[in-house]
Amino acid sequence: MTGTAGRGSGLTRFARRGGAVAVTAALLVVGTVLPVRAQMPGLPPIPLPDRPQLFETAEHSQIRLVVVTRGLSHPWGLAFLPDGSILVTERQGRLRLIRNGVLDPTPIAGVPVVHARGLAGLMDVALHPRFDENHHVYFTYSKPMGDEVRVTLARGRLDGLELTDVRDLFLSDPVGGGGTAASRVVFGVDGMLFMTVGGAFGASGGGQRAQDPGNTIGKLIRLTEDGGIPDDNPFVGREGTRPEVFSSGHRNQLGLTTHPETGDIWAHENGPLGGDEVNLIRAGGNYGWPVVSHSREYSGGRVALRTWQEGMESAEIVWLPAIAPSGMVFYDGTRFPEWQGNLFVGSLRIGGIRNTGHLQRIVFNEQGEEARRESLLVELRQRIRDVRQGPDGLLYVLTDADEGALLRIEPADAGVP
Amino acid sequence: MTGTAGRGSGLTRFARRGGAVAVTAALLVVGTVLPVRAQMPGLPPIPLPDRPQLFETAEHSQIRLVVVTRGLSHPWGLAFLPDGSILVTERQGRLRLIRNGVLDPTPIAGVPVVHARGLAGLMDVALHPRFDENHHVYFTYSKPMGDEVRVTLARGRLDGLELTDVRDLFLSDPVGGGGTAASRVVFGVDGMLFMTVGGAFGASGGGQRAQDPGNTIGKLIRLTEDGGIPDDNPFVGREGTRPEVFSSGHRNQLGLTTHPETGDIWAHENGPLGGDEVNLIRAGGNYGWPVVSHSREYSGGRVALRTWQEGMESAEIVWLPAIAPSGMVFYDGTRFPEWQGNLFVGSLRIGGIRNTGHLQRIVFNEQGEEARRESLLVELRQRIRDVRQGPDGLLYVLTDADEGALLRIEPADAGVP
Repeated sequence: MTGTAGRGSGLTRFARRGGAVAVTAALLVVGTVLPVRAQMPGLPPIPLPDRPQLFETAEHSQIRLVVVTRGLSHPWGLAFLPDGSILVTERQGRLRLIRNGVLDPTPIAGVPVVHARGLAGLMDVALHPRFDENHHVYFTYSKPMGDEVRVTLARGRLDGLELTDVRDLFLSDPVGGGGTAASRVVFGVDGMLFMTVGGAFGASGGGQRAQDPGNTIGKLIRLTEDGGIPDDNPFVGREGTRPEVFSSGHRNQLGLTTHPETGDIWAHENGPLGGDEVNLIRAGGNYGWPVVSHSREYSGGRVALRTWQEGMESAEIVWLPAIAPSGMVFYDGTRFPEWQGNLFVGSLRIGGIRNTGHLQRIVFNEQGEEARRESLLVELRQRIRDVRQGPDGLLYVLTDADEGALLRIEPADAGVP
Repeated sequence: MTGTAGRGSGLTRFARRGGAVAVTAALLVVGTVLPVRAQMPGLPPIPLPDRPQLFETAEHSQIRLVVVTRGLSHPWGLAFLPDGSILVTERQGRLRLIRNGVLDPTPIAGVPVVHARGLAGLMDVALHPRFDENHHVYFTYSKPMGDEVRVTLARGRLDGLELTDVRDLFLSDPVGGGGTAASRVVFGVDGMLFMTVGGAFGASGGGQRAQDPGNTIGKLIRLTEDGGIPDDNPFVGREGTRPEVFSSGHRNQLGLTTHPETGDIWAHENGPLGGDEVNLIRAGGNYGWPVVSHSREYSGGRVALRTWQEGMESAEIVWLPAIAPSGMVFYDGTRFPEWQGNLFVGSLRIGGIRNTGHLQRIVFNEQGEEARRESLLVELRQRIRDVRQGPDGLLYVLTDADEGALLRIEPADAGVP
C-alpha cells in the first residue's frame, strides 16, 4: 500500500507548501513570554468604542461595555478600595488610582524600582482582608538585583497617594532569560497569601525547574501575611525542598483566584502554543509542566509526549488552541444572575494570531465539571490582561496596550451612567 | 489548613450555584449525536446575507462570501462533476444537482430508501477517480434493514438525473440507538476507498465497540473500488478481526480527506464535549476512543481518566472546547496563495452554545505540525456541515439547516459574479 504511509512521512510531508511562513519566520526573543515573529498574522486592530457598546451573549441577552478610563500603560492588575476607588498597576512600575472613573494623573509614590523590560515589571496587586484597619497593599514585581531578576512580593501601607513602610516579603529564585516571570497574588480564605511564580520556560532548559521542589520557579507559593512560612505547608520539613512551595509543575501562571463558595484556590497557566490550563490547586500537587503537557513549542513540535501521567494532577480546563489566559475571577454577583458561579478568564490572543483576545466565560455543572465555554467581546479585538468583579457586582476588565484601558461590563437593561 | 481542600470537595463544591441550568436540563435523545437540552443557550440566529458579504481574515486580507444556492434540506456532502455542476446530498435521502448555480428542482432518481431520522440518512458522496469513463458515484447512507440500521456504502452510475446499477458495496455491523452513525467516503491516492463508520457513542456502552477489531463500528474502513478487501489491509488474516478495518478507536468521524501532497489519509472525529480530534491515519492504528480521550460526557464528567497511553495514536489536532467538526479539506489552489497547505474544517457549534458554528483554518509548519488556527465566518452563526475546494480553486461550504445553503468563498479582490 502506498500513499497512506502515516507518520513515517512526517518530516517531509509539508516540504513545499504548508504554512512555511509561520515558523521559519519565528524568532524567539529571550526573556519574553510571547514569541515575536517577523510578521505574525493578525486581524486589523479596532479602536475602543467612544460610547457604550452593546453585545449579544448566549445566556444574558445583552451586555453593555463602557470604557471607564483610558491612558493606562500596559495595566496588569487591579484592586477595589473600600471607598470605591480602584488601584491599577502599570507594568512599567507605576501604581495608579482611579476615583469616580477619573484616573489620577499622579502615580502613587513609594513603589520600588522594578525591572521593566519586555513582559516583566510591576504585576499584581491585592489588599489585606482587613485593609480597613491596616491599609496594607500587597503587590508582585520583577526585582532587579545586580545581574539577576527575582519575582518579589512586597507590602506597603497606603496613605493617600503614597505607599509607606514598603518591604519585600518574598523573593523567588533568580528568573532566567530577560527576567520575565508572571506573578499573581491573592489572599486565601485561610488568611494565607497565595502567589504564583512563573518563568519555567522551555521544556528542556529552565522549564525543568518547575519539577524541582528545591526552587521556587514554576510554583505556587503560600505564605503568611507577613511573608513567613505556614506550618502546614506541604513541603515543610522535607529535605531538598523549599517550604514556601504549595504546588509545583507550573509554567507561567497569570491567573489566580479563590472560589467564592468553596474557598478553593484556582490558578491558570499559559502553555507556549496550546495547552493553557485552569487548575484546581491541591496542596503538594504536581501539575505536570513540562513532563506532561498539551502544549506545542512555538516552533510547532510537541513539548511532551504525554498529556497524562499517573501521579500528576490533570487540569480542570484545557485550551486547544491557546488563548493566552490572563486574569480570572468567579462571578458571584447579582447583576448577571445567569452568570453566577461562572469563571471569567481574560485572553490575550488565540494561538499565533494578533487581535484575537477576548473574555472567556466558563460554565460548570453541579459537580463542578466544565459544561460549556463562551467567548465574549471577541469583536473588540483587545488583549485582555485582567478581569475582576467589582463591589457593585459588575465585571471590570483591563486591556493590555500602550494605551490600555479599564472597561466595565453591565447588563444592557441597566441605566446608562 | 482549611478552605483549600482541592478535589476532595468536588461533589458539593458547586452545590448552590455554578451553572446548574446547563446539565440538570440535559436530555439525551436516543440516536442523535448532539444532546438536546431543554433550553440550550445560544446566540440569536442571523439570516444568511442576501448579497455577497466581505470578511476580514488574518492572512488573506479580505474574503467575499457568496450564497450560491439556498433551499437545500440539511445538505451533508458534495462532489464536483467534470462539467462544473455539483452533486449535493440531503440527509433525508435526496441527491441534488446544481448547474450554473441553479438547484435542479428534481432530485436525482435511484437513491435507495434511507433511514432518515435524527442525524441519520443520506450522507457523503464521492466520484470515482475515472468518473469520466465510468460515471460511478459512491455514497454513504443509513440503511434500514428490519429493526436494524447499517452504515452502507453504495455505488451507482450517474446518467443525467438518474442513478442506475445502484448496489451496496459494504454494510457495517448494526448501528445502535436510533441508527445514527456518521460516514464520509474518499478515494485514496492508492485507488482504494476509505470510509468512516461512526456510531461508537457512550464511553461504557456502544463506544467500546471502537476498540474491538471484530466489528466495524467506530472504524475507518478500506475497500477496493468494487467493495472487496484489499490484500494489504492491516487486519487481513488475523483471527477475530474484520479485514475491512484500516484503523480503530474512532468515535464518530465526520471528516475525511487525502493530503494533496503526501496522499496521507486524514480524518477527524467528534468528542461528546471537547476532545474533537484530527488524526493522521496510520494502517492498523488505534486512535484511543473511548479508553484515551480529552472528551467530557455531555453531563460534564470525564470520559476517560487518560488523555494519553503508550501504544495509542495521538491526534494531530485536538479541540478544547469542542467545535463539533464536520467536513474538511486541505487547500491547494491558487486563488488564496496564503492558504496553500492549510486545513479547513467545518464547525457545527462551539461546545454547548447554539449559533456558534464557523469555519476553521489550520496552519502547519514545515514539519507538518500545527502552527496556528483561525476561526472564519464566525459572524454568520451557521452550522457548517461540509467544506470542499472547487475545481475553480475557491472554497465551497454547506450549511446545515432546514433551509441549508451552498456558500462560496472568494478573494475579495476577485470580480463580483
